[in-house]
Amino acid sequence: MVLEKFNEPLVMRTFPIPGLKEGEVLVKIEAAGVCGSDVHMWEGRDPRIQLPMIPGHEGVGEIVELNGEKRDVHGIPLKVGDKVLWSRGVTCGHCYFCKVKMEPSLCPHRWVYGIHTTCAEPPYLTGNYSEYLHIVKEVDFFKIESGIDLQVLVPASCSGATAAHAFDLSRMEPGDSVLVQGVGPLGIFAVSFAKSFGASQIIVIGGTEERLRMCRLFGATLTLNRHRLSKEDRKEAVMGVTHGRGVDVAFEMAGEPDSLKECISLTRTGGACVTAGFGEPHGTIELDCFHDIGQKNLRLQGVWVSEVRHTHMALQLILSRMEDFKKLITHTFPLTQANEAIRTMKTKEAVKAVLIPHG
Amino acid sequence: MVLEKFNEPLVMRTFPIPGLKEGEVLVKIEAAGVCGSDVHMWEGRDPRIQLPMIPGHEGVGEIVELNGEKRDVHGIPLKVGDKVLWSRGVTCGHCYFCKVKMEPSLCPHRWVYGIHTTCAEPPYLTGNYSEYLHIVKEVDFFKIESGIDLQVLVPASCSGATAAHAFDLSRMEPGDSVLVQGVGPLGIFAVSFAKSFGASQIIVIGGTEERLRMCRLFGATLTLNRHRLSKEDRKEAVMGVTHGRGVDVAFEMAGEPDSLKECISLTRTGGACVTAGFGEPHGTIELDCFHDIGQKNLRLQGVWVSEVRHTHMALQLILSRMEDFKKLITHTFPLTQANEAIRTMKTKEAVKAVLIPHG
Amino acid sequence: MVLEKFNEPLVMRTFPIPGLKEGEVLVKIEAAGVCGSDVHMWEGRDPRIQLPMIPGHEGVGEIVELNGEKRDVHGIPLKVGDKVLWSRGVTCGHCYFCKVKMEPSLCPHRWVYGIHTTCAEPPYLTGNYSEYLHIVKEVDFFKIESGIDLQVLVPASCSGATAAHAFDLSRMEPGDSVLVQGVGPLGIFAVSFAKSFGASQIIVIGGTEERLRMCRLFGATLTLNRHRLSKEDRKEAVMGVTHGRGVDVAFEMAGEPDSLKECISLTRTGGACVTAGFGEPHGTIELDCFHDIGQKNLRLQGVWVSEVRHTHMALQLILSRMEDFKKLITHTFPLTQANEAIRTMKTKEAVKAVLIPHG
Amino acid sequence: MVLEKFNEPLVMRTFPIPGLKEGEVLVKIEAAGVCGSDVHMWEGRDPRIQLPMIPGHEGVGEIVELNGEKRDVHGIPLKVGDKVLWSRGVTCGHCYFCKVKMEPSLCPHRWVYGIHTTCAEPPYLTGNYSEYLHIVKEVDFFKIESGIDLQVLVPASCSGATAAHAFDLSRMEPGDSVLVQGVGPLGIFAVSFAKSFGASQIIVIGGTEERLRMCRLFGATLTLNRHRLSKEDRKEAVMGVTHGRGVDVAFEMAGEPDSLKECISLTRTGGACVTAGFGEPHGTIELDCFHDIGQKNLRLQGVWVSEVRHTHMALQLILSRMEDFKKLITHTFPLTQANEAIRTMKTKEAVKAVLIPHG
Repeated sequence: MVLEKFNEPLVMRTFPIPGLKEGEVLVKIEAAGVCGSDVHMWEGRDPRIQLPMIPGHEGVGEIVELNGEKRDVHGIPLKVGDKVLWSRGVTCGHCYFCKVKMEPSLCPHRWVYGIHTTCAEPPYLTGNYSEYLHIVKEVDFFKIESGIDLQVLVPASCSGATAAHAFDLSRMEPGDSVLVQGVGPLGIFAVSFAKSFGASQIIVIGGTEERLRMCRLFGATLTLNRHRLSKEDRKEAVMGVTHGRGVDVAFEMAGEPDSLKECISLTRTGGACVTAGFGEPHGTIELDCFHDIGQKNLRLQGVWVSEVRHTHMALQLILSRMEDFKKLITHTFPLTQANEAIRTMKTKEAVKAVLIPHG
Repeated sequence: MVLEKFNEPLVMRTFPIPGLKEGEVLVKIEAAGVCGSDVHMWEGRDPRIQLPMIPGHEGVGEIVELNGEKRDVHGIPLKVGDKVLWSRGVTCGHCYFCKVKMEPSLCPHRWVYGIHTTCAEPPYLTGNYSEYLHIVKEVDFFKIESGIDLQVLVPASCSGATAAHAFDLSRMEPGDSVLVQGVGPLGIFAVSFAKSFGASQIIVIGGTEERLRMCRLFGATLTLNRHRLSKEDRKEAVMGVTHGRGVDVAFEMAGEPDSLKECISLTRTGGACVTAGFGEPHGTIELDCFHDIGQKNLRLQGVWVSEVRHTHMALQLILSRMEDFKKLITHTFPLTQANEAIRTMKTKEAVKAVLIPHG
Repeated sequence: MVLEKFNEPLVMRTFPIPGLKEGEVLVKIEAAGVCGSDVHMWEGRDPRIQLPMIPGHEGVGEIVELNGEKRDVHGIPLKVGDKVLWSRGVTCGHCYFCKVKMEPSLCPHRWVYGIHTTCAEPPYLTGNYSEYLHIVKEVDFFKIESGIDLQVLVPASCSGATAAHAFDLSRMEPGDSVLVQGVGPLGIFAVSFAKSFGASQIIVIGGTEERLRMCRLFGATLTLNRHRLSKEDRKEAVMGVTHGRGVDVAFEMAGEPDSLKECISLTRTGGACVTAGFGEPHGTIELDCFHDIGQKNLRLQGVWVSEVRHTHMALQLILSRMEDFKKLITHTFPLTQANEAIRTMKTKEAVKAVLIPHG
Repeated sequence: MVLEKFNEPLVMRTFPIPGLKEGEVLVKIEAAGVCGSDVHMWEGRDPRIQLPMIPGHEGVGEIVELNGEKRDVHGIPLKVGDKVLWSRGVTCGHCYFCKVKMEPSLCPHRWVYGIHTTCAEPPYLTGNYSEYLHIVKEVDFFKIESGIDLQVLVPASCSGATAAHAFDLSRMEPGDSVLVQGVGPLGIFAVSFAKSFGASQIIVIGGTEERLRMCRLFGATLTLNRHRLSKEDRKEAVMGVTHGRGVDVAFEMAGEPDSLKECISLTRTGGACVTAGFGEPHGTIELDCFHDIGQKNLRLQGVWVSEVRHTHMALQLILSRMEDFKKLITHTFPLTQANEAIRTMKTKEAVKAVLIPHG
């Protein structure tokens, strides 16, 4: 399904299956995720996009062809017929970020299938909204054991990995109290990571009763509906369960300036406020240098995309709670209904929509 | 020397020497530091002050009396005649910050001689602008070997320890490039710590040529005078020596919102910006959620005061570079000229002024 | 219950209730834990013991008297009638370990009720095998909300806190594979912490089928009975679930040299082997400098006792899984049957025995 | 210079200059280091060697040909005529160690020019004891500014980078006291790193007065000659300058079991003992589980080789102290005298010998 013009329906197009060079892999997509950022790309709000292109940066599939020997991240030899998930970002492996600072997510040469790719030229099949994906040799794979429900794993590619990156940078300690702002996939992953890393309190602020209910399923100990409780009421509720201090770590996963300001105000002196919500330009915040930063001894941490080890963390997390994560996938569609899938993400009907090309 | 009214000269007053309870110590002050924040207290801008009071939170001296057995931080038994430096902040030792999070600098019960103390009642002698200081048993001591020039150690108490806290929180790595904003004692300590932590580049932005020269003595590899170079020129200079990335870690030690904004703009993607400059309310900054925080993967870290181990770090630093740190003490005065000493700090004639009560 | 002679039954003795100085607390013991190390003390194998003494370093109770104002670690004011747990170790708060390195567990002045105390002189009531305990003002408290089953919390004092210390030092990362050697309280806590820190694999080696079952309840994903499987079989099993690498982190909680050697051999290159099992002198291990340490890039970490924040971690852990931890307390006895309680710990009939003085 | 038979002189051989594939580089060697491990290889003690081979894993040189675009680690475009240093180890970039644990030095596929390479087949020129070196595209480069004395940089490749890895893993803090065992290049780098990272005490134990003098030049505050001082005297000397505690961090750089035991005995409770000295099988140590590990709360850390960021650290270190590091290169030889160079390293006449192919 090809995006040819912004804000217009994707159209079905047919491409030749490209040949494979040494180390390359051809994958049959079994499930492709529709990400919130796909909606923004469709709307033309993402400057990285070059038309025409096949969207979709989240996917799992089956290897149908590979050229040469290839191993997954754990050293398992890969072969035709194996089910695999792969890391969505390709990095150069040789720059200051990749090799000295060991933060490949910040590699200036990083690119992603279904974001930085165009289908105007070979190898064409460079997005996950497709029956097949052509994968270059730099990509890292995770072999998935047979019998696993593949579509449940899809969110590990992007929102799960990004949430993992946020936890990695948060330096959260077991026993810490945690606040999560936002109840989309990023927020729900944050709740699940907080639970899995031993948080003593998991407080969620969101706007949809149904999603707050899902957060409680994933481990939230207190959920606050921002449409029913004023800012003052929310503050009182958070202080009430944190001995009046505020939380040890706050995760801003909504991508709203007001939400980030609120997170900072609900973080304790010396605590950390981590934001992974801003995937594109969207507003500013004003901070008081003394009260919000200096005297507060605040740590404010931005999070940009993710890397292979975060995909690993997200995959492990999902595998340990398959039944719960099944519920995150609220909608599935055949590939041909990609436009409808995008619509359900745009309207927030769907928590997570998944496309099934060979359903 | 007593502060009885804000903005009026300190006056000399005589107090009885108080008796000592178990664990208490009476110290003859050999040198007391005049801190930039003393100026703010004198001006009535610090809400923690209760008049009348004896200012002075930085000091070194000689033990003239002690009640009971007492050891310094290294376990050395203390006795009359020993030269000592002590930690300026007294913390409760039992709260969440002191015992669970191991961040006693954030203890809500923390208090400091010469800041939170009044001389209206016994034990009266509770500030360092004095011939003697009465020290309660909770205070931590560092014994100083004889033969050391005590007045050089004075800045370890406050600006040195606060700069140490900033480095502790910065997680700076050896080989990192460092930017320091501000050329007061905090900034100069930052340069010296950066050198001692193995920085590959130490860039300083300041407004006084003479102080920038002192920064080069302490290890600055590039100094930029903000009166001679525009913001654009400074950016170009910083990018020029950091392969176009910006610095790995920036230290804002000036306490100016504009300076903090500049620090953030000169920090590389994924880098850290640490600010220890805001000791009192002073302005706001506006940050772009996407460009300044999210996509930049920024870590912004506020720093509030310091704790015993930071005093230890600062003391070790000075002891390893006595000749250089001698030059930091640009002015010394007898105790009776405390008002003049405050004036030289207020006008920035002095980098650091020290009072010698028994000169 | 007083230990007057090693290897002879404890005898019941009556003592006067001591008066309280400023900051002191008298607690009515509601439940006292019988620790494996109590057995060693009773046998005269612990050089810290001075007879006569009241054993017992684990306890929870109710405040029946307190002199002056007092707050718990979270700042909650304490009053008569409050249920409390307290930190078993008292540290000086002023030495290099307490104040510079922030590792109070290593304070050379550290002492513990029921270990370093004698009942030969006032305040007499200095062990938890007693109806009342006299607590000095340096001790840190955790207030327990009413309605909590107190005896379940007892193990937080010692084995829980020590296991927390082991995890703190392990720098284990979420998603890591973990091996636990030993199925006593330390080992079971290790399993539960591994689960709560997000381990992807939790492998346990132990010798009792029933306890291995308990480990599975707490989160073990693979249990290996060392009486049924040879060392080679165990190695094959561990390598089989770790892609042939060995585990990321191994926890030796049994206190056996052979077990420590096995842990090292099952740790991956670059992994960590943490041992908290050696509470008293017990054997040696021989390591090959190249294969076991250098080329393996091994991190071997010893763990000695624990500190307040570890008690906090253990308490939070138990509170989050009360139903499971209830099962850890396999035996309860009235205080008068302390000798029988010790016997059940010595024979390993009990996983954890608890004394109820006022049952 | 080719090693055709173990323990026999290297012989000069001529090879065709190989052609370059995309991303490959041909370098003219300007200086090649003779490493202590080269002696072991020559003696046939290193199982990784496959004859015939060109030894030499340390080198700096000038690019004489490159195929395609290429950038150094800082993103600087490389071109013919540039002086460069490169990372000696080539890693796969895709395994658990490279991508999940971010420890590429432990990559099982890691290989090194002049160690794992044979010259029996194209591209032949695969060791630094040569006029030219053929470099594959996976290798990471550091461009060296013109005017730098290249031979001084040679040790950054191996001993400098390995020492950097040891410091990276040591988690040494500024102000810590440090012990270094061994006065070869590894030990001297350790002294220099300790100095540069703010150690308060740098104690060195070695056996050659001349090398101990060099250690003092690099920053040692106390040097102990093990031929003149007994083990007891050395212990007394170390305890005397560490308040009776032992050092915070000990670095074993000699690769001797006795030396490692001594390091552990001179490390304080809770301190770290790091060993990078064991590059090949050489003996065992026996540790008391309680006294040496458990009660001591010891951290024992093995170190295996190094990675790109450690080369970066070592290079930065040398560049900041060129005059001192010049003295580390005690012997230089033309390439044709490689056998003599190896002899001076074997007899320890040379601290560091360097070959100059085009002198």
